[in-house]
Amino acid sequence: MSTFTVKAFAAESTTADLKEMNIERRDTTPNDVEIDILYCGVCHSDLHTARNDWGGTMYPAVPGHEIVGRITKVGSDVSKFKVGDLAGVGCIVDSCGHCDSCKQDLEQYCLNGFTGTYNGKDKHLGGHTFGGYSQKVVVDADHVLKVPENLDLAAVAPLLCAGITTWSPLKHWNVGPGSKVAVVGLGGLGHMAIKLAKGLGAEVTLFSRTPGKTDDAKQLGADHVVISTDDTQMDSVKGKFDVIIDTVPYVHDVNPYVTTLNISGTLVLVGYLGGLEPILNTVPMILGRKSVAGSVIGGIAETQEMLDFCGEHNIVSEIEMINMQDINEAYERMLKSDVRYRFVIDMKSL
Amino acid sequence: MSTFTVKAFAAESTTADLKEMNIERRDTTPNDVEIDILYCGVCHSDLHTARNDWGGTMYPAVPGHEIVGRITKVGSDVSKFKVGDLAGVGCIVDSCGHCDSCKQDLEQYCLNGFTGTYNGKDKHLGGHTFGGYSQKVVVDADHVLKVPENLDLAAVAPLLCAGITTWSPLKHWNVGPGSKVAVVGLGGLGHMAIKLAKGLGAEVTLFSRTPGKTDDAKQLGADHVVISTDDTQMDSVKGKFDVIIDTVPYVHDVNPYVTTLNISGTLVLVGYLGGLEPILNTVPMILGRKSVAGSVIGGIAETQEMLDFCGEHNIVSEIEMINMQDINEAYERMLKSDVRYRFVIDMKSL
Ligand SMILES: [Zn+2]
Ligand SMILES: [Zn+2]
Ligand SMILES: [Zn+2]
Ligand SMILES: [Zn+2]
Repeated sequence: MSTFTVKAFAAESTTADLKEMNIERRDTTPNDVEIDILYCGVCHSDLHTARNDWGGTMYPAVPGHEIVGRITKVGSDVSKFKVGDLAGVGCIVDSCGHCDSCKQDLEQYCLNGFTGTYNGKDKHLGGHTFGGYSQKVVVDADHVLKVPENLDLAAVAPLLCAGITTWSPLKHWNVGPGSKVAVVGLGGLGHMAIKLAKGLGAEVTLFSRTPGKTDDAKQLGADHVVISTDDTQMDSVKGKFDVIIDTVPYVHDVNPYVTTLNISGTLVLVGYLGGLEPILNTVPMILGRKSVAGSVIGGIAETQEMLDFCGEHNIVSEIEMINMQDINEAYERMLKSDVRYRFVIDMKSL
Repeated sequence: MSTFTVKAFAAESTTADLKEMNIERRDTTPNDVEIDILYCGVCHSDLHTARNDWGGTMYPAVPGHEIVGRITKVGSDVSKFKVGDLAGVGCIVDSCGHCDSCKQDLEQYCLNGFTGTYNGKDKHLGGHTFGGYSQKVVVDADHVLKVPENLDLAAVAPLLCAGITTWSPLKHWNVGPGSKVAVVGLGGLGHMAIKLAKGLGAEVTLFSRTPGKTDDAKQLGADHVVISTDDTQMDSVKGKFDVIIDTVPYVHDVNPYVTTLNISGTLVLVGYLGGLEPILNTVPMILGRKSVAGSVIGGIAETQEMLDFCGEHNIVSEIEMINMQDINEAYERMLKSDVRYRFVIDMKSL
């Protein structure tokens, strides 16, 4: 298969800083589009993959799955896009297309495993996929999103992961006008959860451990901020929420949040993969028909739905723009939660 | 308030056997019906309340919340029943009627606390309520169920607790034709879960730790039995079930069952009140949008719906009839799971 060379930023080992190197992209097949990458958001998964924190990283690792750009080539069978169109690519660049999940537009739960935008199995070239920290990317058109023309393009990029990760559970658990939604944690995911839940018409509360985030949360659209370390404040929201989106990425006690769920309410974990400690108490769950659930990113159709919604409601991420060369420093700042609320790489700098 | 005396069986202290004693029932108020109790099912809660296993038992304790009988008096404002009608009483004899839950026919989640059929706060006489181990009971007509005439009356009694406890989550989580349902544990609750899920058109699997229950489960309507201690059998049902009704009343590892849930599936705990140990792993929940939830009994309208459904589908409990005087021995046998699948007291014996 014929290829072409583009510049990218990659980690060559677990401990190496990311640095510039050349990678190969396939020439567009009949179903592909080629995208000139303008902006790429920086997700926590990028950092964890680059450093092999979860195991399984294949090197060189080129992270990046919050990609926004413009179409520069279109395969002969592609009718959805034309050269010059804006385009987005999220966490999924391929899926089997025929399993029960794919047939329901739930590619994120593809029973045969979706192909990740980076560190996935490259079906075309062999080896593994390279993400958006690069000049161009070639992707199957069915896994490429249309991007509304009216939004700040750089600030759209984080919608492709942080946005859809919070949108999908909000929609699945039927959040709409009048819903009472709480968000646990105010980072990349949490700030999008606030904006999207508010956009959907919900009354939105942020749970935060520190009063310092109150003003920010309210500017983002939160109606209330509850300091989770304050028992009086926690008591005041007992039994209140229909849906809680818990974005905290490390182990934490979810029991205090479960008690703030309304009858038949659901707490959805989107950030923490691991064992629930302290142990989950079933008593409030049984006596109030409450659920604890999980959710990961979202399907392609649902991602498009979210982008269209954001276009209509003028919703984008809060970002801090960086140059590609600043990525290693940005990772260090992310580890300290020192970002409001998402780094986005200006790909012109590469 | 005027009262009358009936015979009952009661525990007078934590350690005392149940024995005959007289209790007072109120005379029917305009909204009440008086019921001559024909049969009363024996629920695990009866035993735990009699022995104060959960704390909070008020003595003398007269258990029994699976009550079937015939109406002997009707209050002046009651139009729903007439003397001679069959009637059922479950776990709830009163509720506030005006909270968000009650307004949605979810009296089991009454935000002001429903009045339990026994060991509840008696709003009329003061003191605490006395259950169905007695000759008669007087209950607010809105909390009394109509009982289909075509069923074996004694075998209807357990529907009022074991039946509705499994029916409510099956309905709430949308079980119907084509659903794949699993039931964990084959006791009073489990055997009703099998019958009701099957009646709703689901494909039903029993998880059991022992092969000895296979024939029984299939006779009850289970399509499959999976021995949960057999890894090969467990692997064969990975990702299969839309809903799992977990009836196990003691602490147990739910993680192996969570992996048998389909994408977006829900495991509902109806038997175990306490902490989930070993700790719950969120990884399969997040990567498959799976939920762990709880549910308790059901509302009055829903209980009526279930009884009507059972009438149409000829569904009743499997029972072993006992005399009132055998209750202490029956409790000992229940503790050893030595009953197929529910004791029912023939109240003629009192
Ligand atoms: Zn991401
Ligand atoms: Zn698939
Ligand atoms: Zn019961
Ligand atoms: Zn109520």
